[in-house]
Amino acid sequence: MKLQAAIDRVSLDQAVYLAHALDGVVDIVELGTSIPKDFGLKTLNERGVALTQSELLIDLKTIDEGVYEFTKGFELPADILTVMASASIDTIEQVYALSEKLGRQTFIDLLEVSDDQIARLTHLNHAIFGLHHSKDTGGNFDAVASVAQFHAAFPNVEHIAVAGGINVSQAAKLAEQGIVEIAIVGGKIAGADDPVAAAKEFMEVIK
Amino acid sequence: MKLQAAIDRVSLDQAVYLAHALDGVVDIVELGTSIPKDFGLKTLNERGVALTQSELLIDLKTIDEGVYEFTKGFELPADILTVMASASIDTIEQVYALSEKLGRQTFIDLLEVSDDQIARLTHLNHAIFGLHHSKDTGGNFDAVASVAQFHAAFPNVEHIAVAGGINVSQAAKLAEQGIVEIAIVGGKIAGADDPVAAAKEFMEVIK
Repeated sequence: MKLQAAIDRVSLDQAVYLAHALDGVVDIVELGTSIPKDFGLKTLNERGVALTQSELLIDLKTIDEGVYEFTKGFELPADILTVMASASIDTIEQVYALSEKLGRQTFIDLLEVSDDQIARLTHLNHAIFGLHHSKDTGGNFDAVASVAQFHAAFPNVEHIAVAGGINVSQAAKLAEQGIVEIAIVGGKIAGADDPVAAAKEFMEVIK
Repeated sequence: MKLQAAIDRVSLDQAVYLAHALDGVVDIVELGTSIPKDFGLKTLNERGVALTQSELLIDLKTIDEGVYEFTKGFELPADILTVMASASIDTIEQVYALSEKLGRQTFIDLLEVSDDQIARLTHLNHAIFGLHHSKDTGGNFDAVASVAQFHAAFPNVEHIAVAGGINVSQAAKLAEQGIVEIAIVGGKIAGADDPVAAAKEFMEVIK
């Protein structure tokens, strides 16, 4: 299982600092949606967020104008960009085709979509399917149970990621469950007093 | 009927220039999704996009973290911000409540949602319901027919906006139809050789 550490709602300086500090410590460094929306892809490109060892994911949450947004994001260069499963099938297929052409990857965000909406996307077999629930909904999200349920419904989906309040103990359970390819951790790494030490603690339990 | 002119896929300088040039010419100046995603809300805030006469809409396409994004957008200060109808009901109700509290307005983007998804939102009677189709889908979009169809299905929705390849002749037809509150025009104003002259031509036919 891979560990993805998400950086969100911090200053540009802090985002760039954290991205470079976590480079090589975790498998994937995510710049969460607040980072491109607060500072813009152009600013991120100028500041330099290219990583040397970890993969870089930008959570663009693209829902239209897919090729425009993905082209800008891949220039950073991001390795993985996110598109909403609730976007039109044209948007999703166009960003997937672009990702494949460039040897990068599409992350399909399954926020608030039905099984029918997911079923029309499972042929995109190189994409990562990302399970989580709305941050605004609050409440508890059982990552292990959600993953089991998704895997039962869509056994052919190969690349699955999950996010939502994952702590060290849940990360260990997800690794043991053996379905998910990527566990996404937000504040428990980026918001820790020592983000690198926190990331290493997660890495230990998932390997 | 009001005219909303959308500015998209231009440099930051050009976006700021166009916003101020169209201020007072059209009813609503929109900074399309590419502007916040390319340059970021913080950069826009620092550059100064406050208008003196027209209303300012930022097409944030919020789909999660609603209060975070709307708080930043209203600081610009935007008068109207957009949220996806495909977001969770919590996100939509939270941004609507914030908009009401601040005396601003929520624009609900109806991209790729079913009538059932719309029906759960019609109680938000101060929100603007925005009809359009995915830019990535291409093909023809009949604004007048789409508006008639929406109005038949949801007769109680008071504030309706429509976007999608609207030219002067279609704007005149929408004004005559008398259902839509806002017609949204993109490239035919912002991309014209003389955007102010183009905007005035639209304003003439819709009053």
